[in-house]
Amino acid sequence: MENRNTAPVGVFDSGVGGLTVAREISRQLPNENIVYFGDTARVPYGSKSQNTIIRFSEQIIRFLKTKEVKAIVIACNTASALALDAVRGEFDVPVMGVVIPGARAAVEATRNRKVGVVGTDATVKSGMYTKIIHSMAPDVTVIEKACPLFVPLVEEGFKDHVVTQEIIEYYLESMRSSDIDAMILGCTHYPLLRSKIREYMGEKIQIVNPAYETAMDLKKLLHEQGMENSGDTERHSIYSFYVSDAAEKFRRFANTVMPFDVPTTNVVNIEEY
Amino acid sequence: MENRNTAPVGVFDSGVGGLTVAREISRQLPNENIVYFGDTARVPYGSKSQNTIIRFSEQIIRFLKTKEVKAIVIACNTASALALDAVRGEFDVPVMGVVIPGARAAVEATRNRKVGVVGTDATVKSGMYTKIIHSMAPDVTVIEKACPLFVPLVEEGFKDHVVTQEIIEYYLESMRSSDIDAMILGCTHYPLLRSKIREYMGEKIQIVNPAYETAMDLKKLLHEQGMENSGDTERHSIYSFYVSDAAEKFRRFANTVMPFDVPTTNVVNIEEY
Repeated sequence: MENRNTAPVGVFDSGVGGLTVAREISRQLPNENIVYFGDTARVPYGSKSQNTIIRFSEQIIRFLKTKEVKAIVIACNTASALALDAVRGEFDVPVMGVVIPGARAAVEATRNRKVGVVGTDATVKSGMYTKIIHSMAPDVTVIEKACPLFVPLVEEGFKDHVVTQEIIEYYLESMRSSDIDAMILGCTHYPLLRSKIREYMGEKIQIVNPAYETAMDLKKLLHEQGMENSGDTERHSIYSFYVSDAAEKFRRFANTVMPFDVPTTNVVNIEEY
Repeated sequence: MENRNTAPVGVFDSGVGGLTVAREISRQLPNENIVYFGDTARVPYGSKSQNTIIRFSEQIIRFLKTKEVKAIVIACNTASALALDAVRGEFDVPVMGVVIPGARAAVEATRNRKVGVVGTDATVKSGMYTKIIHSMAPDVTVIEKACPLFVPLVEEGFKDHVVTQEIIEYYLESMRSSDIDAMILGCTHYPLLRSKIREYMGEKIQIVNPAYETAMDLKKLLHEQGMENSGDTERHSIYSFYVSDAAEKFRRFANTVMPFDVPTTNVVNIEEY
């Protein structure tokens, strides 16, 4: 089973957002090799339908299987919410998402049993965070709010522009005036606005980033299934990056997120899978 | 040749923006049947690479050919700028874009020989408007400016929100303080912000919407090639709408843009073409 242990973990997202999850995996599981796929030709997923998100996810999983991954992390809230149930039984490789770990972290964080969730249109419409939180803790009240402009604002470099502040206020005003005491950043792009969201929401609300808990869950899964890479201090872990478009733009962004140099990124025609 | 004359015109776009062009065609060429395709599964195109835009355009043209179109209008500035040259020689059907008609309209509109162009990242990076304007009128100075947030603002219904005003000012300030006297709305979404852009830019600048000139060019093309639909007052023209995702959302939007009721929209798996 040596092969299985040294095999890489597959991580995918609609684009660059999932790098925040890959970064957390590389931090918590430094021995694991990672194959990352970003679907930059078809980004964003947050405004698309469930059937389409499932089809895209299936293609990506088929591609990752050609890299002989031992487990797959859907590092995209939209795909986790809309496609995880459909794809999980379909492939002979364990697949996990970010919604269950994020929901669990929020349930543990809340004291007054009131949790907020911000995410894309598709994630919020699916109601998946509410459903999963209620399956863990039926007494928790969940308020969900779609913030569809956060992703383009991050992608277009408006993070520090005054309009971003105004759009944060526009989307989160009702959330702030409610009495939630924990809020899930239910989209992998949102941690990149974390300091501004934190500032607006105030110190009494715990901001939950599912990436941390997802890496913990992955660690547990690999341990339970005896698939951990025991590591070899002689060599570095291998990280490979694949995208469906615009490799150079992705590489530049990845270099600002990942704690190491991202040397090359390969383009894949994902529609062929 | 009766068949060829009654055959529909194919019109395609990355999503809903091209409906502003389809509307203009239906107004100027009321006898023509139209097959519209919106690539809603892979929208937006404006941040993607040339190779990807060409591949997407080829798939869509192959699909439209199954509908036996007699001519194709690329009603998307990004695809017109990046893919028209590549696809034009490849298929046995005439293909036209919106960039050449838009450029010509601006050259005719400018008095002081200074023209502005606003568009997506990909359109502006291609420099196609400047290239084509210079091939028509080498003495015209062209200033191009990418406004990547305009599309998500329109799509998310922020048209009348105060931040849209601020983002218009942010993007167009340099354009307004230059001395251009004509400005091309080089993205089919932008006419939906026209009144706000007009208000900010002032009355002395002519706003050019390529849709009008594109319909004129199509009329000329059909006439020159003897492909006009002479019309039959007994029947209405047939408009068919296809998308790659989220048909119902598209249909609702289409009903706000088109001057008639859009009854059904069909979903096509465009990656199979």
